[in-house]
Amino acid sequence: MDLQVAIDRVTLDKAIDLAKQLDTQVDVIEFGTSLIKDYGLEQIHAQLPKLQHAKLLLDLKTIDEGEYEFDKGFATGDILTAMGAASADTLTKVYALSQSRGKQLFIDMMEITADKTAQIVNHPAAIYGIHHAKDSKAGFDAAATVAAFHEDYPMVQHISVAGGIDLTMAQKLATQGIAESVIVGSAIVKTADPVAAAQKFMEVMHK
Amino acid sequence: MDLQVAIDRVTLDKAIDLAKQLDTQVDVIEFGTSLIKDYGLEQIHAQLPKLQHAKLLLDLKTIDEGEYEFDKGFATGDILTAMGAASADTLTKVYALSQSRGKQLFIDMMEITADKTAQIVNHPAAIYGIHHAKDSKAGFDAAATVAAFHEDYPMVQHISVAGGIDLTMAQKLATQGIAESVIVGSAIVKTADPVAAAQKFMEVMHK
Repeated sequence: MDLQVAIDRVTLDKAIDLAKQLDTQVDVIEFGTSLIKDYGLEQIHAQLPKLQHAKLLLDLKTIDEGEYEFDKGFATGDILTAMGAASADTLTKVYALSQSRGKQLFIDMMEITADKTAQIVNHPAAIYGIHHAKDSKAGFDAAATVAAFHEDYPMVQHISVAGGIDLTMAQKLATQGIAESVIVGSAIVKTADPVAAAQKFMEVMHK
Repeated sequence: MDLQVAIDRVTLDKAIDLAKQLDTQVDVIEFGTSLIKDYGLEQIHAQLPKLQHAKLLLDLKTIDEGEYEFDKGFATGDILTAMGAASADTLTKVYALSQSRGKQLFIDMMEITADKTAQIVNHPAAIYGIHHAKDSKAGFDAAATVAAFHEDYPMVQHISVAGGIDLTMAQKLATQGIAESVIVGSAIVKTADPVAAAQKFMEVMHK
């Protein structure tokens, strides 16, 4: 299982510094929507050095004008996100563009109905990103969210999960073996030593 | 009826030049999503002089992290957009923040179901943006789209409409008297003389 670290709501200088530190430690570095809307793709492209090891995911959250945004985004990123809430036509176009560039589409499944989900799980190479919502009910955890999604949509080959993932849950998800990647934000980037925190996640995920 | 001019998919310099030219001519100047994602709010804020006459709408298309994005956006814009596809909770938060700042929320109704629409038409000061899709069926036009929306959701007080609006349709919408504003993009900004084109729209809308 891959570790994706989400960098968000910081200055661009801080984000670039974190990306450089984490490049050799994790599988995917995510630049969040806030970085894109605050600083813009042009500045990110100009200032972020090419990553040596990790892939770069840009959380564009594209919902319209898909080909324009993906053409711009792939000048910098390896993986770009679009909303499941976009039209099926927009998703088909950004999927085709991603495939033609040899890059990857990540579809954010936030706030969409089962009907809509059923219409858009037809892109085999896309990553489907599900959000685990924290809930106090006993037994309801991120691994259960992943298992339920996998049962409902067995045709989805690439599942990513986000939402309050800690070391214990990361290990549980790795053992479960369904999700392809797990997204961790503050539990790594808001710590005093993000590299050490990332190494701990990698350790529990790969033992 | 107000005229909103949408500036999109151009360089930031070009966008700023157009905004300066159109400021005294139109009611609302829109900086499109492409400008925000390409150049970022920080650069737009630093380089765009305060408009003297028109309001500035920033098409953020917020779908998550609403308070963060709206707090940043209102440093520059008078009206900010969020997606109707966002959670009802996100919309409630950005509506409250807009009200507390004395500014305005524009809700983009793209690609949402009637069920979802019914859940989010409860923000009386918000502008609800509907998109007219071009269609070859006789009699199906932007004015018909506006009339149908108004009939389905009579509680919505502020309606904006976009989608291939030309002079004839702008005049028809003004006469119809339901929509509060009309959004025009290429029919103004892609012409040789955008100021003259905007003046023609204002003329037919106010005669």
